[in-house]
Amino acid sequence: MKKFINDPADVVREALAGLAAAHPELRVDVEAGFVARAGAPRPGKVALVSGGGSGHEPLHAGFVGPGMLDAACPGEVFTSPVPDQILAATLAVHAGAGVVHIVKNYTGDVMNFEMAAELADEERIQVETVLVDDDVAVEDSTWTAGRRGTGATLLVEKIAGALAEEGGSLRAVAEIGRTVNERSASFAVALTAGTTPAAGKPGFDLADDEMEVGVGIHGEPGRSRQHMRPAREVAALVVDAVLGAKPVAAGEPLIVLVNGLGGTPLMELYLMFGEISRRLDDAGARIARSLVGNYVTSLDMAGLSLTVCRADDELLRLWDAPVRTPALRWGA
Amino acid sequence: MKKFINDPADVVREALAGLAAAHPELRVDVEAGFVARAGAPRPGKVALVSGGGSGHEPLHAGFVGPGMLDAACPGEVFTSPVPDQILAATLAVHAGAGVVHIVKNYTGDVMNFEMAAELADEERIQVETVLVDDDVAVEDSTWTAGRRGTGATLLVEKIAGALAEEGGSLRAVAEIGRTVNERSASFAVALTAGTTPAAGKPGFDLADDEMEVGVGIHGEPGRSRQHMRPAREVAALVVDAVLGAKPVAAGEPLIVLVNGLGGTPLMELYLMFGEISRRLDDAGARIARSLVGNYVTSLDMAGLSLTVCRADDELLRLWDAPVRTPALRWGA
Repeated sequence: MKKFINDPADVVREALAGLAAAHPELRVDVEAGFVARAGAPRPGKVALVSGGGSGHEPLHAGFVGPGMLDAACPGEVFTSPVPDQILAATLAVHAGAGVVHIVKNYTGDVMNFEMAAELADEERIQVETVLVDDDVAVEDSTWTAGRRGTGATLLVEKIAGALAEEGGSLRAVAEIGRTVNERSASFAVALTAGTTPAAGKPGFDLADDEMEVGVGIHGEPGRSRQHMRPAREVAALVVDAVLGAKPVAAGEPLIVLVNGLGGTPLMELYLMFGEISRRLDDAGARIARSLVGNYVTSLDMAGLSLTVCRADDELLRLWDAPVRTPALRWGA
Repeated sequence: MKKFINDPADVVREALAGLAAAHPELRVDVEAGFVARAGAPRPGKVALVSGGGSGHEPLHAGFVGPGMLDAACPGEVFTSPVPDQILAATLAVHAGAGVVHIVKNYTGDVMNFEMAAELADEERIQVETVLVDDDVAVEDSTWTAGRRGTGATLLVEKIAGALAEEGGSLRAVAEIGRTVNERSASFAVALTAGTTPAAGKPGFDLADDEMEVGVGIHGEPGRSRQHMRPAREVAALVVDAVLGAKPVAAGEPLIVLVNGLGGTPLMELYLMFGEISRRLDDAGARIARSLVGNYVTSLDMAGLSLTVCRADDELLRLWDAPVRTPALRWGA
C-alpha cells in the first residue's frame, strides 16, 4: 500500500490535526473527536451535528461552518463515531434551541447517534434526528437495514443548515431535512475499489473491463457487475435508475449533484455531467441547480454518483443561501 | 482502461460541453476551444488569459470568473492549446486595456502563446506574458527547457487576477504575476502515474513500494525514485526541497498550497498539511494563508505537490480579495 500516512492507526487523528492547522476558523477538538464551527454555540440557533466514518471527505467536517453544520464527528475509517464523541459535539454546539442530528442510514451510525441523543436528553437537550437514506440501488446492504445514505447528505446538510442559520425552529429545520431526503434519490457506479489504510489493499476486486453498478460508499455490492460501457450509456443507466425509483414531474426544478467517489478526475465528472444533463433533458426533467465535484467520497475509489433532488422555490432559496465551509462556499 | 468517456478523441470537447451545462455563468465556446467569464470583455479591465494541456483540472477553466481569469484555453490532454485558440480567447476578452497571458513553462505552451501574442499584436492588442516556472525539482525536463510550471500557476492567476479586478494597469498586473512566480517554489511526489484517455494505461510504472520524487504534472521524471516512506518523512523531503531552492526569512508570511495530483484522498492531503506545517514551523517559517485540495492535477495520479510563496502585505491582501470561479471561491 502507498499512502501519505504514518501509522494506519493514527490516520484520523492526524488528518484532524492537519484540518485544524489549515482551518484556524474551525474549532477542532482532536481528543474529543469533533470539528465545530467557530463561535458555537450561537445563542438562539438550532445546532446541526452530523458525522460518520472517515474516508468520505470532505463529508462531514468539510461542511462545518456558517450556513451548514455546527459540528461534525468523524469516526475511524468506515467506522461509526462513538456515542461519547457525538455527545461531546452536541454539548459543544447546543445553544438552547435544540440540536438536529443528521445521520446516514448505516446500522452503527443509527445506533450510536440514538445513544448520543438519549444521553443528550439526560442533559435536557432536545434532539431531532434526520435519517438520510437516498441510495436507491439496493434495499438492504452490508451495513444497512433499508436504503443507504449517500450523496443527498450534502443537500440535507446545506438546506437544513440554511434554514437553521436564518432562525428556523428545531421542528422546522428537522422537517425540511426530512423533506430533502424524501425528495432525493442517488445511484453510484464504481470502476475501482477504495483502499483503507488499515486493510492496505482494495476493498473488492473488479476486472479491467468491469464496473460495479449501484455500489455503496464503503464498497458495498450494488445491483450487478457489468461490462464497462461508454459514458453516455453509463449516464443513461444512472439517470434511469434514479428516475425509475423516484419519478420527477415535467418542469419540476431539480438540484443535481454529480459526485466523484475520490479517484475520478474532474474532467470525467464534467463530461458525465454533460451526458447526464442531456439524458435528464430527454426525460423532460429540468436542472435548476447543479454541483460537480468530489464531495461524498470513498477514499480513492474511481467512480461517481448521481443525486437528484426534486426541489421547489423554498428549497432552491435555501440551497442558494450563503455558505462558508472548507468544501462548500458561496454567497456573502 | 476504465474511464467515464466515450471516444478518447472527444474527451476534451465533451468535458467542455459538460462544463457549459454545469456553469451557465461561464461562456464556453466549444468550437473555438475556450472558456470565458460572462460579461467579458469588461471595459477598462486588463484581461487575463491562461491555458495549457487538459488533464490538470480544475486548472485552468475552473479558475475563470470574477477575481481570477477572464478566459482559459484547454488544449487536448497533455497537449498545448493551438495559437488560433489562444488568439480567439484573447480577442473574446480584451477590452482595450491589454491582455496578460499566463503561461506554464513547457516548450509547446511557450511557443504557441508566443505566436498568439504576435497575432494579437497584429490586431493591435497589447499582450504581456507571465511565464510560470516554479517547480524546483529539475532544471530541464521532458517537455521543458528550464524549470516546469506547476502549482504556483494558481497563485499567479489568483493574485494577478485580483489586481486586474481592482483596476491595475497592464504593466502592474504582469509585474505582480512575475513577482508571485519568482517568490514561489514547488515540489511534487507521485505514488502512481496518471492514465491519459488516449494511452489507456499509466504513463509510467512505479513499484508497490516506490515513489517518484520531484515528478512533473505530466508524469515527467523527477530527481529520483525512492522507497515509500511515512508521511512525516515525505513532508520533510518536500519542505526541504522547496526551502533549499528558495529560502524563506524567519517570520516572512507564506502562502502554502498542499495540492493533490488527482487520485489522493483529501484525508491524506490534510494529514500531509499537518506534517508540512509542523516542518515549516520547525524551520522558523510562518504560514499566513493556506489551501489544501486537488487544484493542479495530473489526471488520476496519486501524489501531491507543495507550493510555498513568500508573500507580503500586498500579496496577502490580493490573495484575500474576493474570487468567484467554479473551483476557487471566497469573499463577497
